[in-house]
Formats: sequence, C-alpha cells, structure tokens
Amino acid sequence: MNAEILAIGSELLTPERVDTNSLYLTQKLNEIGVEVVGKAVVGDDRARLTAAVEQARTRVPLLILSGGLGPTEDDVTRDAVGVACRRELVFQQEILDAIERRFRAFNRPMAEINRRQAYVLEGAEALPNDRGTAPGQWLADEAGVVILLPGPPSELKPMFERECLPRLRQVVPPRYIVTIILRVAGMAESDLDQRISPIYTRYQNPVTTILAAPGDIQVHLRAYGASEPEARVVAEEVSRQIEADLGDRVYTRCGESLEEVVGKMLEARGATLALAESCTGGMLAERITSVPGSSKYFLGGWVTYTNRAKQQWLGVSEQTLAGHGAVSAEAAREMAQAARRAAGSTIGVAVTGVAGPTLDTGAGAGGPKPTGLVYIAVADKEGCEVKERQFLGERERIRLQATQMALDLIRRRLFT
Amino acid sequence: MNAEILAIGSELLTPERVDTNSLYLTQKLNEIGVEVVGKAVVGDDRARLTAAVEQARTRVPLLILSGGLGPTEDDVTRDAVGVACRRELVFQQEILDAIERRFRAFNRPMAEINRRQAYVLEGAEALPNDRGTAPGQWLADEAGVVILLPGPPSELKPMFERECLPRLRQVVPPRYIVTIILRVAGMAESDLDQRISPIYTRYQNPVTTILAAPGDIQVHLRAYGASEPEARVVAEEVSRQIEADLGDRVYTRCGESLEEVVGKMLEARGATLALAESCTGGMLAERITSVPGSSKYFLGGWVTYTNRAKQQWLGVSEQTLAGHGAVSAEAAREMAQAARRAAGSTIGVAVTGVAGPTLDTGAGAGGPKPTGLVYIAVADKEGCEVKERQFLGERERIRLQATQMALDLIRRRLFT
Repeated sequence: MNAEILAIGSELLTPERVDTNSLYLTQKLNEIGVEVVGKAVVGDDRARLTAAVEQARTRVPLLILSGGLGPTEDDVTRDAVGVACRRELVFQQEILDAIERRFRAFNRPMAEINRRQAYVLEGAEALPNDRGTAPGQWLADEAGVVILLPGPPSELKPMFERECLPRLRQVVPPRYIVTIILRVAGMAESDLDQRISPIYTRYQNPVTTILAAPGDIQVHLRAYGASEPEARVVAEEVSRQIEADLGDRVYTRCGESLEEVVGKMLEARGATLALAESCTGGMLAERITSVPGSSKYFLGGWVTYTNRAKQQWLGVSEQTLAGHGAVSAEAAREMAQAARRAAGSTIGVAVTGVAGPTLDTGAGAGGPKPTGLVYIAVADKEGCEVKERQFLGERERIRLQATQMALDLIRRRLFT
Repeated sequence: MNAEILAIGSELLTPERVDTNSLYLTQKLNEIGVEVVGKAVVGDDRARLTAAVEQARTRVPLLILSGGLGPTEDDVTRDAVGVACRRELVFQQEILDAIERRFRAFNRPMAEINRRQAYVLEGAEALPNDRGTAPGQWLADEAGVVILLPGPPSELKPMFERECLPRLRQVVPPRYIVTIILRVAGMAESDLDQRISPIYTRYQNPVTTILAAPGDIQVHLRAYGASEPEARVVAEEVSRQIEADLGDRVYTRCGESLEEVVGKMLEARGATLALAESCTGGMLAERITSVPGSSKYFLGGWVTYTNRAKQQWLGVSEQTLAGHGAVSAEAAREMAQAARRAAGSTIGVAVTGVAGPTLDTGAGAGGPKPTGLVYIAVADKEGCEVKERQFLGERERIRLQATQMALDLIRRRLFT
C-alpha cells in the first residue's frame, strides 16, 4: 500500500525548521509494509491545504496529515480536510468535556477558542490525545483513509502508535521486518561502498541504506518477510556476506555507538581506562562518559592543553617537548603511560594533534606540524602502541575522527 | 513572489534522510523577498514527478527542483520536466565536452551513460557546475520560471549562488534583509516566550522565530526593507525592546555560541581558565576547546570520575567526600579551587552532579542524591561561588544544561 504524508504549519516553511514527524511516520509505516511515495509541507493556508488534500487522495489510498489541529484561526486542518473530503464538521460534547478536564487537572481555565478542537469530520473517529488538547481523527471512505494527527512529536507519536497502527494493521496485509545495523569505524564511505555494493545491489530485499558520519559508517539492512523468521533469514543472508568482507572493521551489528561497544568490552573484562587529551580537548572523555554506567570502567582524564600542563600534571619530559614537540609520537606515548600510571588504570590512552585552523597546542618544537596531524597512544601492561594519522577537514571533524580512531584502537587492543 | 521547492530522490523518502537543500534555498529566497509557500519530496518516479511539476506550476510562478540530474536510469528529472513543460530535450556538445574534461582532469574514463547529462530542455539555459558533472537548468516561459539543480549540497549551493540568484534578482523587486540573533542562557522557552511575545507579536516585520535547545534559546529577528538601513531600523526597534526586557540574560546579539562569547571575554581580559569536571565528563572542556584559538585562555582540566581521582589528583579532602559526598557544594568548591591552584589560572571551575540514570559518581555519602542535581563552582582571586541546580531530563540533557550554566556563570563572573 502507498501513502503520502502532509505536514501543516507555516513555521515548517522557514529556513530553520524541518518536518521530522514524517521520518518517524515513515519508519512505522515501512515496518507494517506501507511505502511512502511522497511527502509535502504546506503553510497554514486553507485553500492550499484543501487543494493538496484533494490531489493527494487521487494518488494514494492513505494520507497522513500532521499539525494544524490547535485552537486558533491559524489551525486550518479540520476545515480544509472537511472541504476536500466533502464532510461537515460535527461538534462532540465528549471531546469538549475531555479538554475541560485536562485544563482543570492543570488548574487552568479553558479558553473559549478551545471549543474549535471539539469538532470532528462527519463519519470520522476521534483519536484521544493523552498528551495535549487536540484529538486526532481517522476518516475511512471509498477513496481510502485520511488520518489527522497533532503536530507536536510528543503528542503525535503515542497517538499514532496506540490509535493508528492497530487500525492500519487491519487494512494492510501483514508483513514483518528485521533490521540489522552494521557499524564500521575508520573507513571512507566511498571505499566501503566500493567493497560492499557488489553484494547489496544484488538484492531488492533487504533494502540497504548507508549513512556516513566522520570516521563512522552505518549500513542499515532492512528485510521484509511474511514472518519474523523469514525476514531474519533474508537479512542474515546479506549481512553475513558484508561482515565476511569487512571483517573486524565491523564493530557492531546492533547499531550501538563505538563508545558503547568499548564500554561493554571494558566492563566485561573488568578493565579500567584513563585518558590524557590535548587536541580533542575533553571530547574523548565526553563520549566515553555519555554512556550510562561508564563510571564502572572510566576513572578519569587530563585535558592538558598547554605544554606546561603536559609537563606538570603528567610529567611529559622537557626534552620530548623541546625536541619533538607536543604533537609527536613521543609526547603521545609519555602522556598515555603517565595517565595509566597516575590513575592506576588497566589502559591509558592519549591524543595529541593539530585540530586547526591555527596551531593550537603549543606544538612549536620538532618543526611545523600540519593541521589534522594526530598521534594516538594506547598503553597497557604489555607496552604502548602509537599511531600517526593525517585527518582532513575542519576542526570539529578532525577532533571527531581522532576520538573515533582512539576508541577503535581501544576496541582492537581489547580483542587481543 | 511565491515559490515552491521540490526535492527528488527515493532516498529522501526513507526514515533516515531529510531534505536540507530546501532550508538553504528558503533562506536565500527569503533574503531576496521570495516566499516559499510549499515544499515536497518525490521519489525517482517519472510519472509522479511529471504530475508534481505540472500541478506546482499552476500554483506558483517559481519552482525549484533539486536532485535527479545524475547519469543513471533513476535520474528522471530532465525527462519529467520536459514532459510537464512540453519541451524536447536537446543534446549540447559543449556540455558533453565539459563533462569529458572533468573526467580527464581526475584521470578517469567517462562512462557512456554520462551523455544523458548533456541534454537540456529546449529553450532553457544550462547552468555550469564546477563541483560535479550535472549542469543545472534555468527555464523561463509564460507560466514562470523552473530551475533544475543537482542534489548534492556542495554542488547545489555554489550553483544557486552564482547562477540563479543574479537571474532571480532581475525578476524579483529588490528587498533587503537584516537579521539579529539574540541568544539567551538559563531560561525556559515558555518563560521567555511569555515575556517577549507581547513585544514581537505586535510586528509582522521583523519576523520573529524562537529556537530552543537545552539551556539555550535563540531569538531570530529577520527584518525586511527597501534598503539596508531601513531594514536595520525595523530590526533594531524590536530587538531593543526585547533586550531591555531580558537584560543580562542575553549573551549575544550576533548569534555566537556561549563558549565563543566566554572565550572572547577571557581573551579580552587576559584571563585563563582551568576546569575540574565530574558528571559532565569532559563536555565542558570539549565545548570550550571547540572554539579555534581557545589555547590562548584555556590551560586544561581534570575529568575526575571517581572519588579516588578527586582525592589524589585534586586533593579533595577525605572528610568532604565522606561527610557530604562527591555531589556537594563542598566538593565542587574544593575541586574548583584545586583546579585553579594547580593550573595557575585566573579562574577555576568545577562541575559535580548526578547525570543519571544510575548514581554514577560515587556520590554515596551525604545521603542519596536525585538525578539531575548539579553543583557548579567558580573560583577566582576574590573567592569561590557555588550554585546548586536541579536539572530535568535525560543524561545528555542534564550534562548539556550543566555545561551551559557553568559557561553562563563564567560569563557573569567576567562582567563584574
């Protein structure tokens, strides 16, 4: 079955706002086997909205509208759908009672204009809203189904889940979906796609989507089937081939972030971690501590942004800083080892580099260093491994890639 | 003049992708006085796209399409617009030559299918693409203007700026725009709106938009006028009233981030900063070092995620930790003072709290502490100020609000 989604609101036509309800709705619709073949945004304009609803209904049997159900003159969705579907609006006392109860519960008087929200299209079912005043509406006629939902995501989502999905399942043939989310660290999107596109392009099912962020790529495999096991077999067939090709570059098949994966590995091994950061300025610690429960394995870290801090807090030697500079393999090694020693942790990790755009780390010695040059050191009882990398891009991108590579080095260290 | 924007691409109808080109285009169009009255996404579907173009042209005199100009069978924009506007596609040798030159420059052979990109609608102007192979197109006829742009933002933006804006300025009456972006720390959106809506709702010009993030609200005032000074007067009239009402809660009128504002103040005063973080786990350092040139005032910081780290690295006293717990005004004060002393900085700042969802900071002593309870201390030569706050929400939201409040406290300290 095909559907279209229509978001209503002049604020969604400004340069600042984007309609995200349609992403949520698309996901839920895809899961039950409904394809979204178009979506649109219209402002708070009765005539334009009426025309948009009329035209959409000639194209698809399912139309979902979000927004424009508030109590003000600007809220034109009820009226416009009424005109487009040739239905009167009928006042329903029970709905007004529910809105009044809601206001009383919050100890606030109900404004007279809220009466507008108690009107329902003739023949439509009102969909209760437990998070706000505007009820939704479900209208089924010979042309198909039209659903009216409130705009705020916190109202739309529970209403769609509770009121609409069960009704839609009655009219859509059952379909099951299994999603496998592979995540890969340290590869360029083009390199990854070149390797795996010969695999996934052979299949219409699962549907493969690749999402790339700096230093992190997600491969989403969404498989459909008449039963859950059938869908799983379809997803696994492609996933196994991709995983075999990418090997240990794949750090999860459940979609978790790299910091979560590393956290789980540290916790499982009873290992602890301490950090010494220069160019990443706390970003690595921030990512690690973004995981709930990270205090079980993360002891702490130093953000040594000056040469003096590196010397005095971590004991990086004068000779290293004068001879090789703060951005050097030697400095990274001393920082990682010092962090490990001072914290008494299983693993110590250090990042030092040039995030740009200016030389920011007092890396004067050892010759000029290019923006994006980063050294990452991982120290444990076996010794200390240092990697050099030249990252490209802006300051934030360089910092993000450096933290990503550091996390990946910890992950690989914990494998061995 | 009214416009609609149509984005083409089946990937834009998945739950993962959102069309952002339209935000850029809307901003540029608004700036020259064009209103966007609708936007839509269609998949790579010839028939649907043809119908969408035909219908949009009956509604508006300016239609902008992005995407679907690639060389493959899936790229249907040229064909669909040709059918909708009743124009043949004409092969242009100069365009093929340019595409071939581009491939040669990258030392790659041109595939035969790229010939498809050398076809232009009869009577349209080809718009050169200096970042990719697909030229854009500009078609003006009795029904209005249709613009075809490539989908990748890195190609679309320079092409629109260089080729389309000058042409549009010829057909749109001149209009100037001035934007003032006020940013406010430490207020809830509803409180702010209640204060300033009596001011801005009296004006259609400037257009006021409020964007809220945790602990940070942006008020955008976009004013239009027949000249730049005229637009500025209009923007200033409203801005001055809002600023007078909000007082020192406004931390910028140029849209900069709070970390940039604090960085500029520190640098202007020749002051330096050191941090001691617990629950924010490096996020405060990360934000401060996200500003290029922050090494001029940021010396470094400690992420002390355990009681042991707080004691051993910063010298927080056993008695404090045992008596009040790590989440306490006393611990925050000792941390801030120790950071300032150890780093030799002008200002020392500490954050300790419960980010949740579990008690994460070893804050056992001093009784159980609720999730979201945060202490922030700012120490300088005058003494040490400690603030207690109870933040609401999820872990990341609590951490973000804590860093925002810490930055705001530094800002206020630097005022006095």
